[in-house]
Amino acid sequence: MELKGNNVFYGKNVKIGKNVKIGFNSIIHDNVTIGDNTVIGNNCIIGEPIGRIYHSDDYENPPLVIGADSIIRSNTIIYAGSTFGPNLQTGHFVTIRENNKVGHHCSFGMFSNILTDCKIGDYVKFHSYDSISEFTTIDSFVQFYPFVITTNCVAPPEETLVPSHYGEFSIIASNCILLPGVDIGRHCFISAQSRVSGKVEDFSFMHGNPAKRMFDVRKAPIINKDTKRRQYPWPYNFDRGMPWAGIGFDQWLKDNNREL
Amino acid sequence: MELKGNNVFYGKNVKIGKNVKIGFNSIIHDNVTIGDNTVIGNNCIIGEPIGRIYHSDDYENPPLVIGADSIIRSNTIIYAGSTFGPNLQTGHFVTIRENNKVGHHCSFGMFSNILTDCKIGDYVKFHSYDSISEFTTIDSFVQFYPFVITTNCVAPPEETLVPSHYGEFSIIASNCILLPGVDIGRHCFISAQSRVSGKVEDFSFMHGNPAKRMFDVRKAPIINKDTKRRQYPWPYNFDRGMPWAGIGFDQWLKDNNREL
Amino acid sequence: MELKGNNVFYGKNVKIGKNVKIGFNSIIHDNVTIGDNTVIGNNCIIGEPIGRIYHSDDYENPPLVIGADSIIRSNTIIYAGSTFGPNLQTGHFVTIRENNKVGHHCSFGMFSNILTDCKIGDYVKFHSYDSISEFTTIDSFVQFYPFVITTNCVAPPEETLVPSHYGEFSIIASNCILLPGVDIGRHCFISAQSRVSGKVEDFSFMHGNPAKRMFDVRKAPIINKDTKRRQYPWPYNFDRGMPWAGIGFDQWLKDNNREL
Repeated sequence: MELKGNNVFYGKNVKIGKNVKIGFNSIIHDNVTIGDNTVIGNNCIIGEPIGRIYHSDDYENPPLVIGADSIIRSNTIIYAGSTFGPNLQTGHFVTIRENNKVGHHCSFGMFSNILTDCKIGDYVKFHSYDSISEFTTIDSFVQFYPFVITTNCVAPPEETLVPSHYGEFSIIASNCILLPGVDIGRHCFISAQSRVSGKVEDFSFMHGNPAKRMFDVRKAPIINKDTKRRQYPWPYNFDRGMPWAGIGFDQWLKDNNREL
Repeated sequence: MELKGNNVFYGKNVKIGKNVKIGFNSIIHDNVTIGDNTVIGNNCIIGEPIGRIYHSDDYENPPLVIGADSIIRSNTIIYAGSTFGPNLQTGHFVTIRENNKVGHHCSFGMFSNILTDCKIGDYVKFHSYDSISEFTTIDSFVQFYPFVITTNCVAPPEETLVPSHYGEFSIIASNCILLPGVDIGRHCFISAQSRVSGKVEDFSFMHGNPAKRMFDVRKAPIINKDTKRRQYPWPYNFDRGMPWAGIGFDQWLKDNNREL
Repeated sequence: MELKGNNVFYGKNVKIGKNVKIGFNSIIHDNVTIGDNTVIGNNCIIGEPIGRIYHSDDYENPPLVIGADSIIRSNTIIYAGSTFGPNLQTGHFVTIRENNKVGHHCSFGMFSNILTDCKIGDYVKFHSYDSISEFTTIDSFVQFYPFVITTNCVAPPEETLVPSHYGEFSIIASNCILLPGVDIGRHCFISAQSRVSGKVEDFSFMHGNPAKRMFDVRKAPIINKDTKRRQYPWPYNFDRGMPWAGIGFDQWLKDNNREL
């Protein structure tokens, strides 16, 4: 079965790598670079012009770079002016705006909407219906479950936006709302439907509205069904698609001169 | 006014019934069967290949069967490998993944996302923005209102998923979250924004975070505006599109040798 | 860079104004009128037929009017039978149903879903993932932040729907649910994740589940970061894109013979 389609439009100065497949009715706008072996599904818009095209006579599309070995599923819209490392994946009906810097092995699930000017590390995963506000910094290995809302406007409407930060390995469960300026530490777990504000220290297990620190995740009485060990920090129990697969998390930390 | 379009792609071994109409720019992939009189809107993808196509050289699309008399609205994406009974309806921007078995007269509203391996009865209705996790069993006549989230991962990320079950005639109101492993009985009502876990007995009226059983729905002091009778069990007060329309719910139960 | 595309379908009796640009693969159905200088993105469906087409042999599409100077972004679906004033904006993956009357300078953000029979004033803004139920009246200058759910069915499923009303200048923050029949006054602020019912008097600052009136917004201890003044009523602190930009809110009120 073939993944290449027809009725594809290519703008100017488009650079397509080797063995790239592009589906039906997709549009690749000016100044887009796509890495080798990447698959782009049907009805995608890659390099969507940013807003000033509507008010400018001499608009030029800023460059968009999509890394190699990526899978961009049907009906994804990615704006011009961002960079994505290799092994990107998107689900259907994803929108990603301009001025984002995204690492490698990141995944954006169906119906997610990433606004502008975010810095996103490696192996970050957005499950579905995640709404990520402007100027959010998300470190590597963070996972957002469905319907997570990050916010940056304290008293809407207001011009000054307040950025937020998510530390490595933290998990944000379904339907949480993160208030403007949150600073989530490393290895935190935020339970479903929590409403979080302020600074959250490393290894916090947070729950509630308003969310409170229940305990240190390392002491959380939650057992992984597969390993029968305490679930958090989760990298000791889960390695599918992670760089410590096969070697264990401690060995990976050691190999990379990192601490937990 | 005509509903047939052009720029439609047909894969191999596609079986299209009589009087089927397919809109503009839609894609019907390999091994799809579409029943008589069905309408498929614009920009649909019917039989989207499942994930292993990206890692397999000899991928073959599993069969997808869509029943007769269905309305698939524009921008619906249905994966290969599911079966749908007749009188299916989908709204715009719906995604339904593989390995689902869906009965007849089911309706999937706009922006809903049904993951894999679900068993869905007859006359089940998803309103909009409903996110249904893998391995969910939903019995007939259940209705999900907007922004309902079902979950199956107790301690994310974790490999072992915990399925959930929804009993006949139950109503899940807007923006509820159903925690992994819920087992909702028959004729339950879950009020808006509730957070539900565990087993819920038949006829429960549930409310809150965490949701508690407030009373038996048959004693709920809620009067239907049209019939002026107690609203629950709702089939006594609502019959539009239901098989007891015109004969009454009690008669239908009797005719089918069923009990309330 | 050019915004016009090909593979565009035009139905019968379509009236396109001067200097209108239409993107790739878009469909303009029968009896649509588009004002001057409007831009329509890729994969849009303008004038989607309403439901009775599926059950009628002599269906005629009701007229749809889209005002001048509008920007309809890619993958927007607007049904036939509504009217929109000039300077409309839509984000990607927006759906707007039939029988809506919408004023000028309104904005519908990504993944929003507006159902039928709503009356919407001028300068109303929906951010993203907003779900607006049938028969909702929204006065001018109201703003809905992401994931707001308005509802109109008291005891689902039920035939009789209960409309709701939102007064001028009110702000509904993220992930609120508005229960059937709410009547929100002017200049209210509803804080994130609130659950609101009943009548809310003018200038109320509402918070919680169930939402309670915390104080008069004019006394809310919230300072705008830019102006260093109390934030609410917000028109004294925010004027981008508003008709009082450059002259001040008090002068605009005076010029229009209006009171706060």
